[in-house]
Amino acid sequence: MIGGNLATNAGGTNVLRYGNTRDLCLGLEVVTAKGEIWNGMKGLRKDNTGYDLRDLFVGSEGTLGIITAAVMKLYPLPISQWTTLVATQDIPSTITLLNLFQKRATSLLTGFEMMTAESLALNQKHFPHMSNPLQENPPFTILIELSDHESEEHVKQLLETILEEAFESGLISDAVIATNLSQANSFWQLREHITLAQAEEGANLKHDITIPLSALHDFISQTDALLRARYPGVRIINFGHLGDGNLHYNIAPPPGIDFKAFNLANEKPVHELVYAQVERCKGSISAEHGVGQLKLSGLRAHKGEVAHDLMKAIKKALDPQNILNPHKVVSI
Amino acid sequence: MIGGNLATNAGGTNVLRYGNTRDLCLGLEVVTAKGEIWNGMKGLRKDNTGYDLRDLFVGSEGTLGIITAAVMKLYPLPISQWTTLVATQDIPSTITLLNLFQKRATSLLTGFEMMTAESLALNQKHFPHMSNPLQENPPFTILIELSDHESEEHVKQLLETILEEAFESGLISDAVIATNLSQANSFWQLREHITLAQAEEGANLKHDITIPLSALHDFISQTDALLRARYPGVRIINFGHLGDGNLHYNIAPPPGIDFKAFNLANEKPVHELVYAQVERCKGSISAEHGVGQLKLSGLRAHKGEVAHDLMKAIKKALDPQNILNPHKVVSI
Repeated sequence: MIGGNLATNAGGTNVLRYGNTRDLCLGLEVVTAKGEIWNGMKGLRKDNTGYDLRDLFVGSEGTLGIITAAVMKLYPLPISQWTTLVATQDIPSTITLLNLFQKRATSLLTGFEMMTAESLALNQKHFPHMSNPLQENPPFTILIELSDHESEEHVKQLLETILEEAFESGLISDAVIATNLSQANSFWQLREHITLAQAEEGANLKHDITIPLSALHDFISQTDALLRARYPGVRIINFGHLGDGNLHYNIAPPPGIDFKAFNLANEKPVHELVYAQVERCKGSISAEHGVGQLKLSGLRAHKGEVAHDLMKAIKKALDPQNILNPHKVVSI
Repeated sequence: MIGGNLATNAGGTNVLRYGNTRDLCLGLEVVTAKGEIWNGMKGLRKDNTGYDLRDLFVGSEGTLGIITAAVMKLYPLPISQWTTLVATQDIPSTITLLNLFQKRATSLLTGFEMMTAESLALNQKHFPHMSNPLQENPPFTILIELSDHESEEHVKQLLETILEEAFESGLISDAVIATNLSQANSFWQLREHITLAQAEEGANLKHDITIPLSALHDFISQTDALLRARYPGVRIINFGHLGDGNLHYNIAPPPGIDFKAFNLANEKPVHELVYAQVERCKGSISAEHGVGQLKLSGLRAHKGEVAHDLMKAIKKALDPQNILNPHKVVSI
């Protein structure tokens, strides 16, 4: 429900264009720890009358109050969408490609998802009809979506122009444009089936992280190398919302090794290795999925003592009896 | 400086497209009341690791901490901008016009400013070269700006198409498109000189308010009527960022009446009358300019007791000794 989306500040593939759930919210109604109702249900674009209570409750995972109603922003539906899959050879050229699309298509760019060859190979293993339409499953397959409010012709031409420029400057080596809705859907399914393929294969050690784009190549190459050195044959299922720097960087044991045994033995050191690289690159250990209790113990170190103390002070001030979703996010 | 812009969550004519200063900020460094430094200088688009401290400090007017550094979002510069002045007869058709532009031009719409005939007449009195290029100074003169990243031709054609549709459906009765940069600048100067003309004329009773667009016609017609009934001949200098529902709704005495005497006698009842209408329409008594000490006493009534108590609890938690810009925003 929308209250849950707001309480967790949910993300997803549309954040690139429309922001996180926080960015889509204008007003809230919240039940406080005292049992009072805050009526903040104003639908105003500009309102500088005191502290930003709305954004404090959004993303607080129910630990500061319970969201019971909201005023949300809406956008007009686009009249035409074009989806393409392109092949890139490395992260630096993928980011240059992103910048090219951001500069030329600006707000028409509504999707920029990255899938590694290893992720798509796993897809094809479990869903054989899900083959990559690009030749020879390239190192990186990028799903790009443009959405337009002018005309079918306008956005199609824009997409072709940008792809032409990308080919000419050597950023991409292959591209397939979906010619109808069902093909566009099949491109998106490629992306969305990775999670399902992982579940079929066995429980992965998962990381939902954000890395600054300027550090993304450094992060991936170093973390991949460290993991492969420590766990020879390990599979790294790396995919995600590259346009936002948000990776789903998931680890599966080498083929033939039992998932349960591998995870039990290596869960802690794998997480530590990955999160240490996240810290080094000034990233986030939770891009979309919040803190909850899973990341509670690591939060103080990740946020720093000052931020953590500020959070605790706020929790104590708004929920002194610790009755709202206790021992999540911050423990007091 | 940018710290001040962030502490006040500054607005302006670009909010329509790019949001308030809050929306442009990714990370902060803040000195707390304890004298500690919070390093929140991450430039991440997605980071769900606890409470949104950033947005709490932004707009807190220095009462919760002192912003000493920030990471800001940047947008590519548009390659072409087209500016037009159009004449509308009333608020409902002006809002329909706004909706038309939002639907057709979406994020290319970077300006939608409203000026009443009375505002522009004051302009021309003090700056005779600042005549309204539209015929017969219409009831409402709307400045519209489109900004594009594709081509000069593309945005020009889009603007002409939308204006044609607006003419055909009777939303506008006149339009002038700036044919060069200096003419576009002169259109913007019309808008920006209203404040200067007011200063020349004498100190106005000012209101920086937001009204939901759905209540804007109701607000203006009722508030205008109440003011004109109580103060015959009063001048209402109403202009502003209509695209955000943000009006600068300012009151000058009838011609010939001394400003100082009028303001001294009527400041309180005029503010009360206007703010009562803002409350009735579920608007904001401070769109861009914050609370400070000027609006401190009215804030509890405006925000409601629950919100005000939450704000006080936060202030007490983060600045228990009340040393940060005391007696502004909330008094503890």
